[in-house]
Amino acid sequence: MTDLSRRQVLAAAAAVGAASALSPLGLSIARAAVPAAGAQAPGFYRYKVGDYECTSINDGARTFPMPDKFVTNLPKEEALAAADEAYMPKGMVTVPFNPQLINTGSKLVLIDTGNGVANLEASKGAVGRTLQNLVAAGVDPKSIDIVVLSHMHGDHINGIRLADGALAFPNAELKVPAKEWEFWASDDNVAKAQSDLMKGNFANFKKVFAGLEGKVTKYDWDNEVAPGITAIGTPGHTPGHTSFAVASGNAKVLIQSDVTNIPEFFLRNPDWHVMYDTDAELAQATRHKFYDMAAAEKATVIGFHFQFPSVGHVEKNGSTYRLIPAPWNPVI
Amino acid sequence: MTDLSRRQVLAAAAAVGAASALSPLGLSIARAAVPAAGAQAPGFYRYKVGDYECTSINDGARTFPMPDKFVTNLPKEEALAAADEAYMPKGMVTVPFNPQLINTGSKLVLIDTGNGVANLEASKGAVGRTLQNLVAAGVDPKSIDIVVLSHMHGDHINGIRLADGALAFPNAELKVPAKEWEFWASDDNVAKAQSDLMKGNFANFKKVFAGLEGKVTKYDWDNEVAPGITAIGTPGHTPGHTSFAVASGNAKVLIQSDVTNIPEFFLRNPDWHVMYDTDAELAQATRHKFYDMAAAEKATVIGFHFQFPSVGHVEKNGSTYRLIPAPWNPVI
Repeated sequence: MTDLSRRQVLAAAAAVGAASALSPLGLSIARAAVPAAGAQAPGFYRYKVGDYECTSINDGARTFPMPDKFVTNLPKEEALAAADEAYMPKGMVTVPFNPQLINTGSKLVLIDTGNGVANLEASKGAVGRTLQNLVAAGVDPKSIDIVVLSHMHGDHINGIRLADGALAFPNAELKVPAKEWEFWASDDNVAKAQSDLMKGNFANFKKVFAGLEGKVTKYDWDNEVAPGITAIGTPGHTPGHTSFAVASGNAKVLIQSDVTNIPEFFLRNPDWHVMYDTDAELAQATRHKFYDMAAAEKATVIGFHFQFPSVGHVEKNGSTYRLIPAPWNPVI
Repeated sequence: MTDLSRRQVLAAAAAVGAASALSPLGLSIARAAVPAAGAQAPGFYRYKVGDYECTSINDGARTFPMPDKFVTNLPKEEALAAADEAYMPKGMVTVPFNPQLINTGSKLVLIDTGNGVANLEASKGAVGRTLQNLVAAGVDPKSIDIVVLSHMHGDHINGIRLADGALAFPNAELKVPAKEWEFWASDDNVAKAQSDLMKGNFANFKKVFAGLEGKVTKYDWDNEVAPGITAIGTPGHTPGHTSFAVASGNAKVLIQSDVTNIPEFFLRNPDWHVMYDTDAELAQATRHKFYDMAAAEKATVIGFHFQFPSVGHVEKNGSTYRLIPAPWNPVI
């Protein structure tokens, strides 16, 4: 009863202060229940690389029934067991998406763009969140100077367009890997495409870049795509698939793009092949080469398909690898 | 050059649209560099438990030189090696802090309160962020109905006070574990305290609860402290240390409080003893019992000292355990 008395006093004081209604006896202590918020926190996370301020931007995460050949060189039961081990919903697989924003001090650079805001409603908010998370991070899409694309899959390129087809980053130079552009823009390759997946990728590429064909800047591997941001050829996932080293002062991080799809599967099991690879054997070789380097350097690695905030370290674990996610840093 | 032309066109169009200054020739395409944001994203994260909306609230994370006996039953080099494996800064250890907010639909309940806003400035923003992250999550501290404390260490209780000593949650009932209260409020125990750590804990308890001695509600283990929230005795870290089961419908999570300090050390090595334990042997036994249960149930476990957002699953790994952090969910 002591506490009830105290609560009455406090509630009455609060009610007077806030001009809330008191019962005629001044004893009402009921407060309305606080409604549920019903929405997640903004999905952005900042980290420094030397003088550069970087922001991991969450485009969302898609959970879908695992395709029979999600891992092409493995019985489905083994892939389902790996999903189970990662506590994914039964029979499903979850793939997150994380573009990276880099403020070099002189340029605002966005690496990859997510699934596109046009997919926001259809996915019930699961994907296509890059624009809203950029805005939550205080970034006007018009202020982005350079958009760098790692490769031409829809989850990386669709975000360059708004739902009505207009450019989402109207003032940005659009930089694409030369080798990658050559592959997807080739009518010969379109004609050779056999699987529905590849046909869909070619069609999506054509649609997304319609009218932009002469306006993109093509970049080559081992060159800077922006100050301090160097393109690293990591082919296999696609022919021109590109990762990035971001360096400022003595600091460096590696933005791996899709060297692996989800690490729960393909970093822990680097010889598993994801269905999205154009050349899975080459992707596998690239994976080992890239992670052997990252592990030896103890480099910070950012993965497009790592769990948000998608920043971590990769360690060798015998002939496989493990990811050690970086802790959330409350200050930057 | 194609691209420069395009940028000129776009920049000019944007400049006209935004009434920005053009050079006399209309050719100026310079835009001011975007300043760095200089601050981290808000530290809150929402998850559902049945009908309940829960929010992990980050109080921050403290990085400090590792005390010689941070792990009391281990040579310091081994503890330093574990910190190194977790990519903590050389010679240092990082401990995060995460109170939990639970909206049951009728009550707004905060479990633990962090280091207190008074520590915000002294720690350069590293800790004491609970209030600002609650506000970022849209929660008025005055709307919190119940504050439940798991145990009487400063990082859990100091947040009940503002910098000037006023109550941070003025309308909340303050619930404390009866057994824990009995221990810290005992003058006999104060007199028996030998280490500076214990003396400091007793002094801090006395200061924080000054004037509140008759106003707290004492709760017992195995009872509900709020609708759907049951107190679970997990003694050892302190005599009355308490964890919680939060249940709604068929869903349940375990809020472990300090069954371990940082999981990188004490969950992977459950027989290591942290310097903060009152009875380290009992804490060790409790740890095995709690995690054996959590692993068998495949329960979602929330840890005060887990990395934000501090939600995951615990698995048996032989005679030790491992933590699988839950992926960031963009929708709830």
